[in-house]
Amino acid sequence: MDDQRIKYIESKIRSIPGYPKPGINFRDITPMLHDRKAFAECIGLLKEKANGTKANYIVGIDARGFIIGSALAYSLGLGFIPARKKGKLPYDTVSMGYEMEYGSASMEIHSDALKKGDVVIIVDDLLATGGTAGTVGKLVEKLGARIESYLFVIELVDLKGREKLDGGRVASLVSYRGE
Amino acid sequence: MDDQRIKYIESKIRSIPGYPKPGINFRDITPMLHDRKAFAECIGLLKEKANGTKANYIVGIDARGFIIGSALAYSLGLGFIPARKKGKLPYDTVSMGYEMEYGSASMEIHSDALKKGDVVIIVDDLLATGGTAGTVGKLVEKLGARIESYLFVIELVDLKGREKLDGGRVASLVSYRGE
Repeated sequence: MDDQRIKYIESKIRSIPGYPKPGINFRDITPMLHDRKAFAECIGLLKEKANGTKANYIVGIDARGFIIGSALAYSLGLGFIPARKKGKLPYDTVSMGYEMEYGSASMEIHSDALKKGDVVIIVDDLLATGGTAGTVGKLVEKLGARIESYLFVIELVDLKGREKLDGGRVASLVSYRGE
Repeated sequence: MDDQRIKYIESKIRSIPGYPKPGINFRDITPMLHDRKAFAECIGLLKEKANGTKANYIVGIDARGFIIGSALAYSLGLGFIPARKKGKLPYDTVSMGYEMEYGSASMEIHSDALKKGDVVIIVDDLLATGGTAGTVGKLVEKLGARIESYLFVIELVDLKGREKLDGGRVASLVSYRGE
């Protein structure tokens, strides 16, 4: 059953070769979000991955992780915490830089968003090298909270992003190999 | 009843004077998103504003409008369409520029996201001057779709943003005056 639901979601993910630069095959979730059935199934399947969760918050990663994470938080009755690129959050933040293929970037979370004893699920649309999600995980732990899991719609398996994600289990709905 | 629910939501909106620049009193919804009860009430109240909707899509505005719009789309069983700042969407787009206090900006929607006969609700966290939401409305109409309504969590009433929003009714949950 799951298999058919996942195939339906996968059928609504669009591949855009050469975006944002040559050699990259971009996996575009906008047709999936657009299709009410696929969008509802996607959130429903992620909710099942979080079955029996002890988390009190979803941490969604800027910006497509906001779309997936917010609907998931609402469906689970949890609070939502945005993790954003540097300079986008208005209050006191904890910040951490990380290396990317070209150059570096930073992620931030409000410093009053989490405390010891809190449990979170970190959500993004796509797991590639794991740089961004791994950094968000480190910020969560820096604030004393525990990571229950990392949930993604899409995983680019060969990039081995899972290996960069500590502290919680990792799950995704649709996997791509060979890229 | 509504009044108490709205007061509760309002109590979770944080004011940050001088952000992002002197003279601005930033209305920060992150404590409201963080509070599972306030977040659920917020989406529930917006859902009531959309009562009897004929819309088939929610158009959420980058990036806080993704958080509100996505949960609302999920709760209503609708599809979700992201409206983004220029250069952020991977496929063919329609684009439109607009003037801001200092300089100008552009918003985009995927050109295959809407067609004649489609009906949308446009969602953002905050209505200020109406420049961004008004531009997204024009893009929606350019693609031949109809705007049923514009929904916001917060409205800065004195900035008269409503006057810039054509084609659909406008509703918000929490109003601020005198700024």
